[in-house]
Amino acid sequence: MKKYTTLILVGIIVVLAAALTGTLIFLRNQPPQQRAFTPLTEIAAMEPDASKWGLNFPNQYSSFLKTKDNNIATTYGGSNPFSHLERDPRQKILFAGMPFSKDYNEERGHEWALYDVNNTKRLNLDKENPKRTPGTCYSCKSGNNPQLWDEMGMREYDKHFFGDLTPRMTQSISCANCHEANTMRLVVTNPALKEALERQGKDWTTFTRQEMRTVVCANCHVEYYFEGPDKYLTFPWDKGTKVEEMWVYYTEEGFSDWTYPETDTPMLKAQHPEFEMFTADSTHYKAGVSCADCHMPYVRDGAAKYSMHDIHSPLLNPTQACGQCHTNTDYVVGRVAEIQNQVYNTKIATEDAIVDAINAIKAAAANPNSDKALLDQARLLHRQAQFYWDYVSAENSMGFHNPEYALKILAESTNLARQAQMKAAQAAGDPSLLEINTYYKSQGSR
Amino acid sequence: MKKYTTLILVGIIVVLAAALTGTLIFLRNQPPQQRAFTPLTEIAAMEPDASKWGLNFPNQYSSFLKTKDNNIATTYGGSNPFSHLERDPRQKILFAGMPFSKDYNEERGHEWALYDVNNTKRLNLDKENPKRTPGTCYSCKSGNNPQLWDEMGMREYDKHFFGDLTPRMTQSISCANCHEANTMRLVVTNPALKEALERQGKDWTTFTRQEMRTVVCANCHVEYYFEGPDKYLTFPWDKGTKVEEMWVYYTEEGFSDWTYPETDTPMLKAQHPEFEMFTADSTHYKAGVSCADCHMPYVRDGAAKYSMHDIHSPLLNPTQACGQCHTNTDYVVGRVAEIQNQVYNTKIATEDAIVDAINAIKAAAANPNSDKALLDQARLLHRQAQFYWDYVSAENSMGFHNPEYALKILAESTNLARQAQMKAAQAAGDPSLLEINTYYKSQGSR
Repeated sequence: MKKYTTLILVGIIVVLAAALTGTLIFLRNQPPQQRAFTPLTEIAAMEPDASKWGLNFPNQYSSFLKTKDNNIATTYGGSNPFSHLERDPRQKILFAGMPFSKDYNEERGHEWALYDVNNTKRLNLDKENPKRTPGTCYSCKSGNNPQLWDEMGMREYDKHFFGDLTPRMTQSISCANCHEANTMRLVVTNPALKEALERQGKDWTTFTRQEMRTVVCANCHVEYYFEGPDKYLTFPWDKGTKVEEMWVYYTEEGFSDWTYPETDTPMLKAQHPEFEMFTADSTHYKAGVSCADCHMPYVRDGAAKYSMHDIHSPLLNPTQACGQCHTNTDYVVGRVAEIQNQVYNTKIATEDAIVDAINAIKAAAANPNSDKALLDQARLLHRQAQFYWDYVSAENSMGFHNPEYALKILAESTNLARQAQMKAAQAAGDPSLLEINTYYKSQGSR
Repeated sequence: MKKYTTLILVGIIVVLAAALTGTLIFLRNQPPQQRAFTPLTEIAAMEPDASKWGLNFPNQYSSFLKTKDNNIATTYGGSNPFSHLERDPRQKILFAGMPFSKDYNEERGHEWALYDVNNTKRLNLDKENPKRTPGTCYSCKSGNNPQLWDEMGMREYDKHFFGDLTPRMTQSISCANCHEANTMRLVVTNPALKEALERQGKDWTTFTRQEMRTVVCANCHVEYYFEGPDKYLTFPWDKGTKVEEMWVYYTEEGFSDWTYPETDTPMLKAQHPEFEMFTADSTHYKAGVSCADCHMPYVRDGAAKYSMHDIHSPLLNPTQACGQCHTNTDYVVGRVAEIQNQVYNTKIATEDAIVDAINAIKAAAANPNSDKALLDQARLLHRQAQFYWDYVSAENSMGFHNPEYALKILAESTNLARQAQMKAAQAAGDPSLLEINTYYKSQGSR
């Protein structure tokens, strides 16, 4: 009798322990949303203020706030606002005659976007000057935008001058730039992105969640331009998103961002085509990886699993970021360094070639006897070389988002720049314009 | 009593079944060598005849024999001996004045090496001609070599003319080129490799087996040159194995393979630097992958596990070759295609730039008023541009062994070629030498 009692008791203990373990494992594996019974607070549609969303999503919100602090530099980027012009003075020459030659700092985290655009020296707020900065420049800087675009329409918004929109801008980039309130669905909020996708025959509402974890970044991290007198925000994607395709688009549109001084070249400024570079069949993109997989890795806080919202370089937390897929993150970090060094060195050689071309075209343009047709060919080659170079240079990954494509583009750009220099010398009939490394010569070194 | 009998019997059955299963599992997991009690036949040291080794290793031998058959083309390589000169006629121009402009076919499998070297039009067997082909050209073509080198020494071997060694060459590349008889240890057999490693302070006998699975390929798949009047086979690795380091080495040695006609440029012919390209910190090399891992994947035949010896492009059997590590080989094959297309297109642009440089230097050299110093600078730039290009072009992987490095080298080569063209125009004081795409213009297209 005693034996049976013991057996029954042990049995009960085993069953209870198993049930408890099972329950705990089940709980641990539940996504956080399903554990919360009701949201603590209802969020208004397109609510600009992140702190209100933060009441429902404290983990995401508190990690998002870290984008204010992460003043950390990687070798080539990070979130420390160093001056690109001081670090690489060739860029002062390359951007001569346009605002990036005055002020071009590495961008900081999302929480700094509004402050930084309000304080860059690139702005022209002078009310007497018809060329003053358009309101369109706020498009990627504020969580107020989705509401404002909804209220006044993108075209009306873009017609404003920058300073006239300033009072409406109370929030830096925030939850409403990527999420639908309450459902938390990832959404395209920038009308320019919605329209560019539509012109490609794509409807973002049919995209998978994994696709959206890349596409929402394209609300801002893209090449764009201001179209027409309304300065209407437009993505030049109608022929495709590769640099070769955007080049054809801009050529057909006859668009230019500014005219290069002393050479009279109509120039293009590439912005930050992270989305285009990454999705141009890069190895990670083809493997199904999204932007968020590396820049917003999943982490755990106790039982809660959530995506980090302190978006920054994965080189700052490779164990979390790369370690989601790669077992040996030391190897991975070493590879990134190797690739970025190769791209950086190739990029500098490209810049040297473009500076040589600029100096030759300047001299040929100053020579009244220069052949006009050849000089125009030289200008066109410079325009293309510099746009290709800038597509890689302005892109925030030092080539890592798509190493082979970045290096192929730089090889082409260098070739085009040398051809520009050659055409300028032909135009002027002056072989002395064929000097190499004129940048170093002007610095008195090399 | 009966109950106990049953229990005992069941117990015996269980124990027997477990023992049998364990033994079978143990057997299945034994490497084949340990299962064979004694080798069927003893192999003489450095035995040139693969069929004798094949008695002991029938699987390796029968797969090795397939290198005779695999006449299969990949997009850019494979084992089908197409003519590089017909496929890309620019190479006739680039190799003008040297044998590769007469006959340059894609190489076939190891079993063809001896036949193909005996039948290439690149040979000069003319006994009246002091420049006739040296015996050194047999160094990577025959399984007789280890024995011959042991018997006569490498210097004596290299002093022979090619035709004088022909009667000793009975076997194509075979087991003795990489293996020690009976122990089957992987060994460095080429004295040039042993010596090049020693000059770098390395002793191959201390390498791990995984290291040797790459190093034995360097018995042949490397950049080399014939040093001095004895045509002594030498690897230019004293400063390192990267192209930049070999360039410095050759510059200091003042070595050249031939003089380019009409330009008088001392040129370098890169051979097949697969080992150097792969080990220049490529992603696979840094991940610990060896040549044999992809080119000689492990397969099973019944209980026997062995390394395939029908060495060829992994693109011919990606499921076996890439599938050893990668789960999605469709993805992998797509990536290889993307990378190789990018390298190929960049390589063609580089060739166009070098052809332009050659045409400009020819014209400048023909002009008696050309500045001699500037013309020499143009020649030197052409020499470097072409060696860099050839390091990528002659390397058998269309850049895949190290994509970023290959593209970086091509970017540099294009830049150097354009600079060569510019210096030639400066030397002649003639801007008409700055024509672009002279190759296409000579073909009447583009």
